[in-house]
Amino acid sequence: MSLDPVLAKIDADLEAATERLMTLLRIPSISTDPAYKADCDKAADLLVEDLKSIGFDASKRPTPGHPMVIGHAEGSGPHLMFYGHYDVQPVDPLELWDAPPFEPAVEDTPKGKVIRGRGSSDDKGQLMTFVEACRAWKAVHGSLPARISIFFEGEEESGSPSLVPFMKENAEELTADIALICDTGLFGDSTPAIVTRLRGLLGEEVTITGPNKDLHSGMYGGIARNPIRVLAKIIAGLHDETGRITVPGFYDGVEELPQEIAAQWEALGFSNADFLGEVGLSQPAGEDGRSGLEMIWSRPTCEVNGISGGYEGDGFKTVLPSKASAKISFRLVPGQDPLKLRDSFRAYVTSQLPPDCTVEFADHGASPASMMATDRAEFEKARQALSDEWPNAAAYVGCGGSIPIAGYFKDILGMDAMLIGFGKDDDQIHSPNEKYDLSSFHKGIRSWARVLAALSE
Amino acid sequence: MSLDPVLAKIDADLEAATERLMTLLRIPSISTDPAYKADCDKAADLLVEDLKSIGFDASKRPTPGHPMVIGHAEGSGPHLMFYGHYDVQPVDPLELWDAPPFEPAVEDTPKGKVIRGRGSSDDKGQLMTFVEACRAWKAVHGSLPARISIFFEGEEESGSPSLVPFMKENAEELTADIALICDTGLFGDSTPAIVTRLRGLLGEEVTITGPNKDLHSGMYGGIARNPIRVLAKIIAGLHDETGRITVPGFYDGVEELPQEIAAQWEALGFSNADFLGEVGLSQPAGEDGRSGLEMIWSRPTCEVNGISGGYEGDGFKTVLPSKASAKISFRLVPGQDPLKLRDSFRAYVTSQLPPDCTVEFADHGASPASMMATDRAEFEKARQALSDEWPNAAAYVGCGGSIPIAGYFKDILGMDAMLIGFGKDDDQIHSPNEKYDLSSFHKGIRSWARVLAALSE
Repeated sequence: MSLDPVLAKIDADLEAATERLMTLLRIPSISTDPAYKADCDKAADLLVEDLKSIGFDASKRPTPGHPMVIGHAEGSGPHLMFYGHYDVQPVDPLELWDAPPFEPAVEDTPKGKVIRGRGSSDDKGQLMTFVEACRAWKAVHGSLPARISIFFEGEEESGSPSLVPFMKENAEELTADIALICDTGLFGDSTPAIVTRLRGLLGEEVTITGPNKDLHSGMYGGIARNPIRVLAKIIAGLHDETGRITVPGFYDGVEELPQEIAAQWEALGFSNADFLGEVGLSQPAGEDGRSGLEMIWSRPTCEVNGISGGYEGDGFKTVLPSKASAKISFRLVPGQDPLKLRDSFRAYVTSQLPPDCTVEFADHGASPASMMATDRAEFEKARQALSDEWPNAAAYVGCGGSIPIAGYFKDILGMDAMLIGFGKDDDQIHSPNEKYDLSSFHKGIRSWARVLAALSE
Repeated sequence: MSLDPVLAKIDADLEAATERLMTLLRIPSISTDPAYKADCDKAADLLVEDLKSIGFDASKRPTPGHPMVIGHAEGSGPHLMFYGHYDVQPVDPLELWDAPPFEPAVEDTPKGKVIRGRGSSDDKGQLMTFVEACRAWKAVHGSLPARISIFFEGEEESGSPSLVPFMKENAEELTADIALICDTGLFGDSTPAIVTRLRGLLGEEVTITGPNKDLHSGMYGGIARNPIRVLAKIIAGLHDETGRITVPGFYDGVEELPQEIAAQWEALGFSNADFLGEVGLSQPAGEDGRSGLEMIWSRPTCEVNGISGGYEGDGFKTVLPSKASAKISFRLVPGQDPLKLRDSFRAYVTSQLPPDCTVEFADHGASPASMMATDRAEFEKARQALSDEWPNAAAYVGCGGSIPIAGYFKDILGMDAMLIGFGKDDDQIHSPNEKYDLSSFHKGIRSWARVLAALSE
């Protein structure tokens, strides 16, 4: 089946496609807030109807939380599973939005046209790129170039509580040859990217207790153990002078980046200065001797995400507090075992405690890093297809964040995944004034049309 | 004039004296809360009337805040100025009180009778020990054994904003031969104490800024500077391994304790284990090689009173924050210049900043340490008088906290002060269920009667 008329159809249909996305964006499907439960349901219904209109056998599938949307369409060639999510983040602080978050509009900006509104980029705009590509194929050729299944989740922004049970209960139905996930971004403004590695995440909350109650620092200062000082010292000791993490065994299993990948990343022309300059910084703060991309994509980290203790209000109180606590997270890379590292971290902190202090830990999740199966033929095919669409050749990139769905597909269904997306760094996802470039939407649809053609060959 | 009938009168009058204190305790004179302004006024009025009833020329003196109470009574012998404060701390958390804080009562406890209620110890009960001693002298002998002035403040618990201006405007009227201050405690349960040294206080708030906004730790973790980690490292570096403070010049001017004082303190039998055991600790955490009493009375300290940064709510957010801050205070000893140390501290913190970080400081006060003029004859006279009253001989002690009034008397009026008080460590001042031992009240009155006799000789 020929690709060119499909691309032409996509171009001709862009205004209508944008309108369809706007209809979806108008539904405030905020999954974390029970007040929007009916809206989540409505978004699922809309998607089911839309999928049916292009020939999918689609249905809304109940869960204890928000429903899943599942669709299947026959086709020759491989069986592809597409994943996206129709729920969105809350909108507060609402006063920082320049327009109501659920009244989307196409806006002209100095950088080009954008679709503004909550969910435009994360993830409604992205998931619709795939749906629109299917629609164009169907319109032009009467059929799809592959057997395609669709899996839209409605709880991605609220911790996906129903995802794993649903996947386990419907394992056979949800398993395809390979999964396609559209929830990531371009590299820079015009380099399409396939994410081939995701960092894992270990979250720990550490609470140090010294005295059994808050003390007056005049009466006790100097003689009594101060848990804030104890905590600060432990945090300060988590990295050595070269930026390496000091927890024993932390780097066990961490491998150096293969030469080939290192060369590819080098070729991307990533600028530390540009990347950091956007947020008011100039110098990379990670391990000595590592490139910026290594720091965010392929090296494990330890960060303090929050710290708290003593008097934090206005003014001053000379309290010597009983407790101090910190939220500490580790980004993990392939080869690291999150559960083993949790034990090592807890043992290390405990070993650093001075006399009279105790520590409590709270578990805030542990997920391993993922490495995609880039040796599968689909990766090179998709990379070529994306390179044909965009000004720059597509790149295999890393992702510093954690996208658990890819790991679940692999672990539960034994299915590899390919992460392709068209978001930009300035899309302001999770923040006020979220947007999706009209060019991301347009070229994203065209990209999927090309990828489908390539994978069906 | 003979002392014994005065002591007998005090014993006979104890129940009536306790009733008078209760009347004062029933007035909720919380100075920091504007809702209690009229109550502060009422407490001042009550004290003026009471002083008049025993022959003082007493008046309520307006200030921009709560009024001062000033009284003068003629007498032969030296001119003594007595200071106390009639305002009290707020009562929250109210739910932790076993009885309403302003419905005082005498309670039997396993350790003896106590007067329970806000202000019973700090400082209404204490100031009334002096008033009752004067009343007994007057009742028995028709006159006082010294020329006595009274100075009651109503803003001590809210930062004393009117104190210095009032003192300056009324310097002549407020200057006597020596001041007596009753706002401190016994040493242990039965050793009367004269405080001869008070630590000063330098309060600083440090805010470190790294990135210009909060970042996602997946996207930026590893490459971007984390201000919590920067702050933790700076705090950890403020003490060396021996517990000494590392700020350059910090110990300039700090002298070793004179052998004689060290021997006196040694003789007090202070137990680190007992003192720390009360608050769930066992080992002193101060400088190596220093005694517990040195740590709290004669050595300077640096403590973190509060720390804050990033996400501090329930659960977890993988934020890499823009800012982190800490409230840091130094207890100072004689010889240290607070303003010079502020500069040294700020320079030190600034010198520790890694690239891309900035720091802001907020000033939360700077007051020097005070050393009392223990070579004046009044000190030994008072010490003997107190020793006559209590089971143990009176001790010259230090005080880890900061009581600015003594320094103001010296600096503004050129008047030395003697700090004598009868509070106990378990009085729960500033906390729920504040109490004052009936024995502190009774023997406190007797103590002042004896001190007045001794000073008039």
